[in-house]
Amino acid sequence: MIRVGILGATGMVGQQLVRLLEGHPWFRVTALAASERSQGRPYAEACGWRMTTAMPAWAVAMPVVPPAPPLDCDIVLSGLPADSARVAEPAFVAAGVPVITNSSPHRMDQDVPLVVPEVNADAVSAVKGRRGFIVANPNCTAAGIAVALAPLHVAFGVEEVLAATMQALSGAGFPGVASLDVTDNVLPYIAGEEEKIPRELNKILGASMTMSVQCHRVSVRDGHLAALWIKCAQQPSVGAVKDALRSFRASAEVAALPSAPAESIVVRDEPDRPQPVLDRDAGNGMAVTVGRIMTDGAWLRLLVLSHNTVRGAAGAAILNAELLKARGLIG
Amino acid sequence: MIRVGILGATGMVGQQLVRLLEGHPWFRVTALAASERSQGRPYAEACGWRMTTAMPAWAVAMPVVPPAPPLDCDIVLSGLPADSARVAEPAFVAAGVPVITNSSPHRMDQDVPLVVPEVNADAVSAVKGRRGFIVANPNCTAAGIAVALAPLHVAFGVEEVLAATMQALSGAGFPGVASLDVTDNVLPYIAGEEEKIPRELNKILGASMTMSVQCHRVSVRDGHLAALWIKCAQQPSVGAVKDALRSFRASAEVAALPSAPAESIVVRDEPDRPQPVLDRDAGNGMAVTVGRIMTDGAWLRLLVLSHNTVRGAAGAAILNAELLKARGLIG
Amino acid sequence: MIRVGILGATGMVGQQLVRLLEGHPWFRVTALAASERSQGRPYAEACGWRMTTAMPAWAVAMPVVPPAPPLDCDIVLSGLPADSARVAEPAFVAAGVPVITNSSPHRMDQDVPLVVPEVNADAVSAVKGRRGFIVANPNCTAAGIAVALAPLHVAFGVEEVLAATMQALSGAGFPGVASLDVTDNVLPYIAGEEEKIPRELNKILGASMTMSVQCHRVSVRDGHLAALWIKCAQQPSVGAVKDALRSFRASAEVAALPSAPAESIVVRDEPDRPQPVLDRDAGNGMAVTVGRIMTDGAWLRLLVLSHNTVRGAAGAAILNAELLKARGLIG
Amino acid sequence: MIRVGILGATGMVGQQLVRLLEGHPWFRVTALAASERSQGRPYAEACGWRMTTAMPAWAVAMPVVPPAPPLDCDIVLSGLPADSARVAEPAFVAAGVPVITNSSPHRMDQDVPLVVPEVNADAVSAVKGRRGFIVANPNCTAAGIAVALAPLHVAFGVEEVLAATMQALSGAGFPGVASLDVTDNVLPYIAGEEEKIPRELNKILGASMTMSVQCHRVSVRDGHLAALWIKCAQQPSVGAVKDALRSFRASAEVAALPSAPAESIVVRDEPDRPQPVLDRDAGNGMAVTVGRIMTDGAWLRLLVLSHNTVRGAAGAAILNAELLKARGLIG
Repeated sequence: MIRVGILGATGMVGQQLVRLLEGHPWFRVTALAASERSQGRPYAEACGWRMTTAMPAWAVAMPVVPPAPPLDCDIVLSGLPADSARVAEPAFVAAGVPVITNSSPHRMDQDVPLVVPEVNADAVSAVKGRRGFIVANPNCTAAGIAVALAPLHVAFGVEEVLAATMQALSGAGFPGVASLDVTDNVLPYIAGEEEKIPRELNKILGASMTMSVQCHRVSVRDGHLAALWIKCAQQPSVGAVKDALRSFRASAEVAALPSAPAESIVVRDEPDRPQPVLDRDAGNGMAVTVGRIMTDGAWLRLLVLSHNTVRGAAGAAILNAELLKARGLIG
Repeated sequence: MIRVGILGATGMVGQQLVRLLEGHPWFRVTALAASERSQGRPYAEACGWRMTTAMPAWAVAMPVVPPAPPLDCDIVLSGLPADSARVAEPAFVAAGVPVITNSSPHRMDQDVPLVVPEVNADAVSAVKGRRGFIVANPNCTAAGIAVALAPLHVAFGVEEVLAATMQALSGAGFPGVASLDVTDNVLPYIAGEEEKIPRELNKILGASMTMSVQCHRVSVRDGHLAALWIKCAQQPSVGAVKDALRSFRASAEVAALPSAPAESIVVRDEPDRPQPVLDRDAGNGMAVTVGRIMTDGAWLRLLVLSHNTVRGAAGAAILNAELLKARGLIG
Repeated sequence: MIRVGILGATGMVGQQLVRLLEGHPWFRVTALAASERSQGRPYAEACGWRMTTAMPAWAVAMPVVPPAPPLDCDIVLSGLPADSARVAEPAFVAAGVPVITNSSPHRMDQDVPLVVPEVNADAVSAVKGRRGFIVANPNCTAAGIAVALAPLHVAFGVEEVLAATMQALSGAGFPGVASLDVTDNVLPYIAGEEEKIPRELNKILGASMTMSVQCHRVSVRDGHLAALWIKCAQQPSVGAVKDALRSFRASAEVAALPSAPAESIVVRDEPDRPQPVLDRDAGNGMAVTVGRIMTDGAWLRLLVLSHNTVRGAAGAAILNAELLKARGLIG
Repeated sequence: MIRVGILGATGMVGQQLVRLLEGHPWFRVTALAASERSQGRPYAEACGWRMTTAMPAWAVAMPVVPPAPPLDCDIVLSGLPADSARVAEPAFVAAGVPVITNSSPHRMDQDVPLVVPEVNADAVSAVKGRRGFIVANPNCTAAGIAVALAPLHVAFGVEEVLAATMQALSGAGFPGVASLDVTDNVLPYIAGEEEKIPRELNKILGASMTMSVQCHRVSVRDGHLAALWIKCAQQPSVGAVKDALRSFRASAEVAALPSAPAESIVVRDEPDRPQPVLDRDAGNGMAVTVGRIMTDGAWLRLLVLSHNTVRGAAGAAILNAELLKARGLIG
């Protein structure tokens, strides 16, 4: 068993990591680290647990420690806020500890692989031979879109993407969005989000797509929905798009990872899907659901939905950690 | 005073008509018509009043009558569902009664002016000399976008528009959207909507823009929000766009109509506006709020918000009726 | 395997029955019955599936049949609306088919056991020797309260209960509550509910408590919350109440039923629990969560939360069916 | 004109004070005070304005100052958080400035009148002859209940009240309740609330009622709803209760105050009223709506709804200030 430390363990992503690592076949959580306010207290007391399943028994009394080396673990999974991540993650690297992170500050660093295993697993080779390093997963919105675009880019050459997102509350963490800001309302602004998505997608896909993104926060607990318009080198038919998405398979190596979903992409033909409440838990939150696929003039248009704190955060980090383990790059 | 009959008086648009015509300087409601289920009962009893102000005293005991001529009135304002409108409205025309309608079936008819007074007031000239006729206002989403696009089209020549909408619950009438369908959820489909918006906008603007629209229902009571990408003959600067929108004025004739807002377009510079709950009531629900105006690559992008049952329905119909009256085409 | 027919299979309770019976060790669904509109169509097409897990494979193509005997099954589980249940259920009884129902019309019939297995399992003895019969579970709100009150009634003699409920949307079925009626709102009325709860609770508990109930619909998908004030023959201490609730155990026979939760009652000590979103899925939706237990003057007060379509409907019916099977009264 | 300083001007109550004082016939705002973070900045910049009408023009550029004497004003209206109020309000008193406060710390002080003008206007006499003093309005929930109970206490002698509340989000201020805590959820706990309501009601009514209150936060923007069970010295009939409520009139002195509603109590006979979204704005938010009046065994039961930031906060403070002015106790 690889011993895992969780950074930012009391936050929304940290809680999902704790939940998803319960009973994991390869990983055992040996350290829970969080900000000063939580340190020294048992996890159950420090953490306002907001998962809908009970806190794993092993976590209840585990004392919360500072997110700094040394930590009693072989690797760290990080769900730290950007400010803390900027400092803490390089410290672990310097201490020779692999960091698999969901945080944003280092995603675009040249020596940090930004990885979605179904899409660009080989990017992790860059860390071969290094003891301390960072491997990042993308922004919660980019994560789902990357999976949906990957087979389209391979098959048809995506050149331009416009995306309007309707993002869930959990993406802002806790306390995050004030209820008065979103009850009977839509918030048409998420700081930094519209810049991150294009650059991260191009890095993951090895592409140079032109992109413009408009982000909105809606009154949904979990599940980011994005309406996309896509232009390809040559416009494919709806049938060809559905074929490309439905025949998409993760590599055998990735498909065998414990957290990989049976299908990474679920294509729905109904006129009114995907919907956050009905589709976010597909594949235990790791599948990406695509629907309303149409051509409209020169555009291909479709909807992409994914669970923002699973496929878009905690589950993504765990899948990356599993990939590193499968390749012998950790443990 | 012109005597007005309201068709579909018990529905959401009908109730807004009743509310907005209370104390109107030119119009007096003399007939309330609705479907069979309501007929013969006093309005207060037939109608599940859902406005947040009290029902006008004159409406309480008024008996609900069938939506068919003859009706005790000079003109009818119609908020009928499409199926009923298709039959009832031509019957009034045949009986020589002007119909000012919010319903969709006749909007694209060649002899039906589709009018937003700030944009294409002169279209009403087509009914000159006719006794019975239909004048329509556009779809609730198209109404707000038409106002926002009008000055841009004049100034810069709009060639292409992509729009992702986040539409309010009241747009579906009552009972409309089931609460289980939209609580903690987004519904990515509104029947017919994506087809209506482009064709109506081109008719109103006298344009031939290429358009693609993706419509979503969100958990908001009132106020349709649309995220737009716009391509013009020549891309304007953000400053030029704001100038065009801010300097937009209704004609003196239209500005003098009782229901015309002081400003038809409100431009907001904050990064997080417009928001439905904060901006839908601007100009008593008749102003259109535009924000997040940016250029992004070859695109101009911005957000448009308008009150869907006021600017997008009841208020629009009343403003059209006022325009007809001002030009001596009714009364 | 006992062959089960589901009446009202396309409704919210019917869908939960389909979901919960997937992979059941004793029961296999062999017939799906619903109203005329659905009949003759494959279940997947007739049913607007709103569960968040995929429809079981066996259900997809199963044709929907009328809810009337003969049906290809040994027993029927009924989630029919009251009007249909009133007719259909006696028809099955007359045809010699056991009916385990969630519907209300026959709950108070003298020859119909109203059963919550942890509370009054022996009531099912009344059907011994009969081929066709009805066994009912209580109203969705009464179901959870019955479990919470049972140990208190045994230990302290409950004499009076006042309850204010905050009930979930799914309790009204689909389409049920209109979104405009409950967004940014509370609906303070649920037809018939305030009468059912007291009489059903007294029947189940074999009690003659004085009760008054005020019911409200809130914007929550699942999980009925009730704030109770309780007067006992002698007022117990908070400690005694917690002991009574925590030491409550289903009989060995009931605890061994496949759908029985490990703990029927979960007692929470935090000041802000139970909460619908966090606690409704306790025990797979079959546990009842009690919290905020206090004495206040002469009153004992506490909160009760239970999943209204599992513990309060589909799960309750299945648990009753399991009890009948365990006692050899069906199959 | 009396010159008014607003303490806590950037908060939710402060914003309501600014909104409601726009165009007031007796009061002119001359100072806006708030916490350190806001000081020195123009109000429009310091304040995240969340009212749905535009910020009054006079407020936009007014600089925010510290909430401490001296302030350029004759009286202060305070919407400070409890911690700040505890320090700031006595400082103004010491400086000889009348403080009309919505904050809780001093409400139960013996020399502080706790006033609802329709109920206990004469309590303000206590400040006669004093230059600096505090007059408080009650807690947002107690405010509405006080108005509803007053005529019942006079007519029937209220001896016991049990209340379950469903309170709006704005009652917690901004940012207040996290959206993840209340979306698809009910929060069954509001710190301190269950203690404040009984003691404040007894002080206002000059009563010694036994009370028990269970408070819940629901997903509603504005409008606190309370379900009450009431025991009187002698149980009145429903008719007598409705008569007492409907015939309730503020004194001529109070009825003439600029912010007094035409009717302080609105009685609704429909089975499903009051509802927050439909009834909170009755009487411009100053009327209290009572409905579902029934007797149930030995109990009288009914629902009370009032706008928590108008009748329950800002409007209440302004009405108190108007009363003081009418009696010559300020200005």
